[in-house]
Amino acid sequence: MEQNKIPQATAKRLPLYYRFINNLNQQGKKRVSSKELSEAVKVDSATIRRDFSYFGALGKKGYGYNVEYLLGFFKRTLDQHEITEVALIGVGNLGTAFLHYNFMKNNNIRITIAFDADENKVGTDIGGVPVYHIDELGERLKDTEVAILTIPADEADAIANQLVNHGVNGILNFTPARITVPSHIRVHHIDLAIELQSLVYFLKHYSLQ
Amino acid sequence: MEQNKIPQATAKRLPLYYRFINNLNQQGKKRVSSKELSEAVKVDSATIRRDFSYFGALGKKGYGYNVEYLLGFFKRTLDQHEITEVALIGVGNLGTAFLHYNFMKNNNIRITIAFDADENKVGTDIGGVPVYHIDELGERLKDTEVAILTIPADEADAIANQLVNHGVNGILNFTPARITVPSHIRVHHIDLAIELQSLVYFLKHYSLQ
Repeated sequence: MEQNKIPQATAKRLPLYYRFINNLNQQGKKRVSSKELSEAVKVDSATIRRDFSYFGALGKKGYGYNVEYLLGFFKRTLDQHEITEVALIGVGNLGTAFLHYNFMKNNNIRITIAFDADENKVGTDIGGVPVYHIDELGERLKDTEVAILTIPADEADAIANQLVNHGVNGILNFTPARITVPSHIRVHHIDLAIELQSLVYFLKHYSLQ
Repeated sequence: MEQNKIPQATAKRLPLYYRFINNLNQQGKKRVSSKELSEAVKVDSATIRRDFSYFGALGKKGYGYNVEYLLGFFKRTLDQHEITEVALIGVGNLGTAFLHYNFMKNNNIRITIAFDADENKVGTDIGGVPVYHIDELGERLKDTEVAILTIPADEADAIANQLVNHGVNGILNFTPARITVPSHIRVHHIDLAIELQSLVYFLKHYSLQ
């Protein structure tokens, strides 16, 4: 299958669809309509139908989509058989929240190692994940391709640089800083202040029905 | 100005543009090219030019955009003169991270009140914000239109219901639960697991140059 043919906007919704289809399957459901899916995942049903057409899943009128088919498709597509190991950089409040969060539920991603500069945290184990000193990044980081950045903004660029030098090629950046990395490195940026500001803006300027 | 004419995708980038234009202005910069902006905010320059055309900001070849004009536009559009008060529900690690985060920097949003069920947290003050018992939601929440949900997923629907009953009409939902609210309530949903899964998926299937 040519996965690159799935538009990026559709690809972004894949993990979301996967989680709900997996839940339905565990409840013993055999089929689901785009309307039911739409209500569960809060994506409008026209978008769902268009997305699913890229997956080769053609809903039938009065029947909906076959849960088992969708589940198989999402599993293959999201490589659920393959565990991705992730490093967490910065064990403050936000980092600690990540470590306590159970990523393994319906998921193939695991934070296996964490780093911090605080000597009180180094050597501890949070949510089952060992915390090492940030100076040990180079020797401890082996074959880890993905890192989560939950450090102060003014350290973001220097640490991102180190991560890239040690083989990381995907960064989930939670600092307010826009980091500068080589163009082949993928950075997804989540800025809590901007998310909040965006919600407030939409609230004031775009009314819902 | 007809703000509703700005496409939602463009509107989502407004807070981001605002922050950088504000920084440029504080540095005494008078003008900025779409290329410079693109490098700073990590949005491609064609998108920036299209977005800015909605703002009535027409860049000139060899000159770029006028920083002061843009700043004035963003300030008016984002209602920077008006403070929005936000309630935070759930003072765990993620909630505490929010309380310590300085939203006021370049920003018109302030968390003014927090709630938790943990008696050890009730009555304390975190990052200058008082924490009340969740049972006091009804009496304490006055004229607060926006709430951040950082509570366990299985409590999300019940609490969201209470928030809506007490006048909240915008919710930033950080729980993995998709909450069910009346259709006029705006919910922005940020699911940490899904953000991470999406990054991994893109890393595997969409190569960058």
